[in-house]
Amino acid sequence: MSTLKNDRFLRALLRQPVDVTPVWMMRQAGRYLPEYRATREKAGSFMALCSTPELACEVTLQPLRRYALDAAILFSDILTIPDAMGLGLYFSPGEGPRFERPVRDRTAIEALGTPDPESDLRYVMDAVRLIRRELDGQVPLIGFSGSPWTLATYMVEGGASKEYARVKGLLFDEPATMHRLLDTLAQAVTDYLNAQIRAGVQAVMVFDTWGGVLTTRDYRDCSLRAMARVVDGLIREHEGRRVPVILFTKGGGGWLELMADSGCDALGVDWTLDLGEARRRVGDRVALQGNMDPCALYASPERIRAEVQTVLDSYGAGPGHVFNLGHGIHPHVDPERVGVFIDAVHELSAPYHQNPHHQNDVPAPDGT
Amino acid sequence: MSTLKNDRFLRALLRQPVDVTPVWMMRQAGRYLPEYRATREKAGSFMALCSTPELACEVTLQPLRRYALDAAILFSDILTIPDAMGLGLYFSPGEGPRFERPVRDRTAIEALGTPDPESDLRYVMDAVRLIRRELDGQVPLIGFSGSPWTLATYMVEGGASKEYARVKGLLFDEPATMHRLLDTLAQAVTDYLNAQIRAGVQAVMVFDTWGGVLTTRDYRDCSLRAMARVVDGLIREHEGRRVPVILFTKGGGGWLELMADSGCDALGVDWTLDLGEARRRVGDRVALQGNMDPCALYASPERIRAEVQTVLDSYGAGPGHVFNLGHGIHPHVDPERVGVFIDAVHELSAPYHQNPHHQNDVPAPDGT
Repeated sequence: MSTLKNDRFLRALLRQPVDVTPVWMMRQAGRYLPEYRATREKAGSFMALCSTPELACEVTLQPLRRYALDAAILFSDILTIPDAMGLGLYFSPGEGPRFERPVRDRTAIEALGTPDPESDLRYVMDAVRLIRRELDGQVPLIGFSGSPWTLATYMVEGGASKEYARVKGLLFDEPATMHRLLDTLAQAVTDYLNAQIRAGVQAVMVFDTWGGVLTTRDYRDCSLRAMARVVDGLIREHEGRRVPVILFTKGGGGWLELMADSGCDALGVDWTLDLGEARRRVGDRVALQGNMDPCALYASPERIRAEVQTVLDSYGAGPGHVFNLGHGIHPHVDPERVGVFIDAVHELSAPYHQNPHHQNDVPAPDGT
Repeated sequence: MSTLKNDRFLRALLRQPVDVTPVWMMRQAGRYLPEYRATREKAGSFMALCSTPELACEVTLQPLRRYALDAAILFSDILTIPDAMGLGLYFSPGEGPRFERPVRDRTAIEALGTPDPESDLRYVMDAVRLIRRELDGQVPLIGFSGSPWTLATYMVEGGASKEYARVKGLLFDEPATMHRLLDTLAQAVTDYLNAQIRAGVQAVMVFDTWGGVLTTRDYRDCSLRAMARVVDGLIREHEGRRVPVILFTKGGGGWLELMADSGCDALGVDWTLDLGEARRRVGDRVALQGNMDPCALYASPERIRAEVQTVLDSYGAGPGHVFNLGHGIHPHVDPERVGVFIDAVHELSAPYHQNPHHQNDVPAPDGT
């Protein structure tokens, strides 16, 4: 493997000093880019794009050719694991992802096995290996998975849901069955992320898209507990470097303190929280990733720069911040505005990293 | 007007002692009831149901015939105000509410007038008067409106939105125009709620359905600021009683302290917050309304009772709690389970109101 030329992203996740704040965007390989839409059309379907390593590699690299991003993220889908478990993933027009064979009772859940990533999900590992080779050390590559709870919602409901009637019914009436499913998924997610790490990803992120629909009790006992099991089982050092783990629960702003105790290195923060307040709440336990309102990219260049400044001011000086949007970039954003955004982060963040007293929260050897 | 036979709901909103915790449900007049579906079919369309006082009255009263609810809520829609402003509300199958003439620039926004509720929204006031007469003092009647920000999102986007590109684009690039719109809507909502109070509603609730999509700064400066203006302008005493005001921002759990300072009497709390924690955060400034997970109504009767107990335990002893779901009741809930829920609140809450030392947080005359 070639030497990593830009390690700002990995250093910031470990709260180490950096020259400027690193930045990437959730869904940076996506529909707002005309070259993505062209490759997607060529692939014929979304799943063909995910499952053809050359095409997944191509769309992963596309945003890096336009912007000075500090990380690449594997192009894939969060539902690859249940698909490999035999549930039959398909995409229904207007309805999004669906499963042909949802799991809804104890028998079906007990029958689930955990996929072998190198055989059952080989297309993902091949994509990782290819992307690492093509990146040639330019920036680190992020791997990811859906969280056990988020995968469970799709597997029990059979697709996206507005009400979560089935999965929460199971949680309320058959908690042991639900925990069995979450335990199986925690193991599957651990195996999947470890295989991605062995194949070459240099940081991993767990997307807990639907943790925010739970009560605090159920979030702690179901979603967070399963994510903490995943974190416990991950390879934390590879190729001589620490592999940072980021947890992101959409709508989970009320639970940052609980999440910070999970053993992860960083938390994704959506735009509804003040980032400085989030930093005060988690202290020096974890780094933070976020959190500009994705809608700010619809604004004028001047206003985009002002919003970047606001987020930087809110976080304040010192390490431990990875700049990102608070959620995935929207499909209708003008790609030129994205360039304004990325450049603004690098340009405007430099002053926050210049004072050596702010470079690190760890006391100096003389105790100051 | 006849004497109010059950004033638990109004007393709890003012943090006065009650015998048992009052309970009602958001969307209690709704699709989960077969009799509602029959009336809705008879009306022909949702707007016909809203705009025919006899039918609006009928569906408002339906849940009270089945359950021992402690309040009725006017059956109407949050988009009546922009419809009366001339935007042309219609319901598109699969798309929900839409406006024929959205407002998207300064000229259109400056041209907006505020409706005269007794002429332009007379069907709402007639429904209120009829419901009050038919209720005959059984329980209080709640009036409501959408919040200025929530109405603005629909008016600028032209309907429901996933991305809020237009309304947030306006907010970012033309803040003065957005504030002009919010000021106009604050006046319109104030006039509308005051007319409902004069027509007979005994408490009012402001539904801020989309406040939760904002950053903390924009929530405070746009949505909350406009709601506080509404609260300031409301008739607070009518028919010799205080008219309590409830604010409910969906996904606004991070902002309870800010909301509690708005001058309102109570806050709606969704199910993602621990109610006891919410109570500690707002102290004795406001009452709280909520917050059982609406999905708990899919569970077994035993589990529903256990969930009610959990919410009661979380709030703890003493006044200031109106039991509700954390969001509207789902259309597919079994009406029998609703009965289990309502009865459980009354039965299980009695012990929390028996100790005179817990009846009120106000110190006794001897200072204890």
